[in-house]
Amino acid sequence: MLRKKTSRRAPVLRPRLRVLCGSKTALGPGRVDLLEFIDKTGSLRSAATRMDMSYMRAWTMVKSVNDSFRTPLVEIARGGKRGGGARLTVAGRTVVGLYRRMEKESQGATSESWKILRKLLQVNPGG
Amino acid sequence: MLRKKTSRRAPVLRPRLRVLCGSKTALGPGRVDLLEFIDKTGSLRSAATRMDMSYMRAWTMVKSVNDSFRTPLVEIARGGKRGGGARLTVAGRTVVGLYRRMEKESQGATSESWKILRKLLQVNPGG
Repeated sequence: MLRKKTSRRAPVLRPRLRVLCGSKTALGPGRVDLLEFIDKTGSLRSAATRMDMSYMRAWTMVKSVNDSFRTPLVEIARGGKRGGGARLTVAGRTVVGLYRRMEKESQGATSESWKILRKLLQVNPGG
Repeated sequence: MLRKKTSRRAPVLRPRLRVLCGSKTALGPGRVDLLEFIDKTGSLRSAATRMDMSYMRAWTMVKSVNDSFRTPLVEIARGGKRGGGARLTVAGRTVVGLYRRMEKESQGATSESWKILRKLLQVNPGG
């Protein structure tokens, strides 16, 4: 990652893909981040902490995600020494992979228009 | 638009593109909707009503958008009989057009992955 003083002000295009079932969000950037933290840490509690959210909120999100798919994306181990152990299922990994791929596809497809748009943006002359 | 009972539950992929300058949003779906309502109604007050937001909030958003671009996207006429008259500038129309084009580009580029992803989603059997 390039870390320059100017990079804080350089305009960025962020595609936030949201999968809606009616008015209910089945999948979005927050949920996918949570799934990835679960994959990294193997723990719902640790993933919640990394996301700066309560364990209960993370648990509710996981339940909602699991209910939205044919196969659960996360397996939660109840009890045990540390409690809250969790891991992604094969479906979970597939879904996270597809979502990140779609983000890249979106970013790639919009890059030419984005080049035009960003030229219209005000850039702080001192930035 | 197809309006069937089932369509309420059919999963939808919604790309929400956000242009960020640092932590500040320069452009996003809400702002673009507001710009389009201004274009349709010729009035900031009417556009605010359509967006279900206060006039002051809409005014602040327009000011923020205008400050984010080299050329203002909206011209606001102060005073006058009805007050709050507003219209898009050429730059404003260009930016709205680019944004909507990017949404379509994003949707087009992700359609194959989305077909795979939506098959993994739970669909209400009665829906």
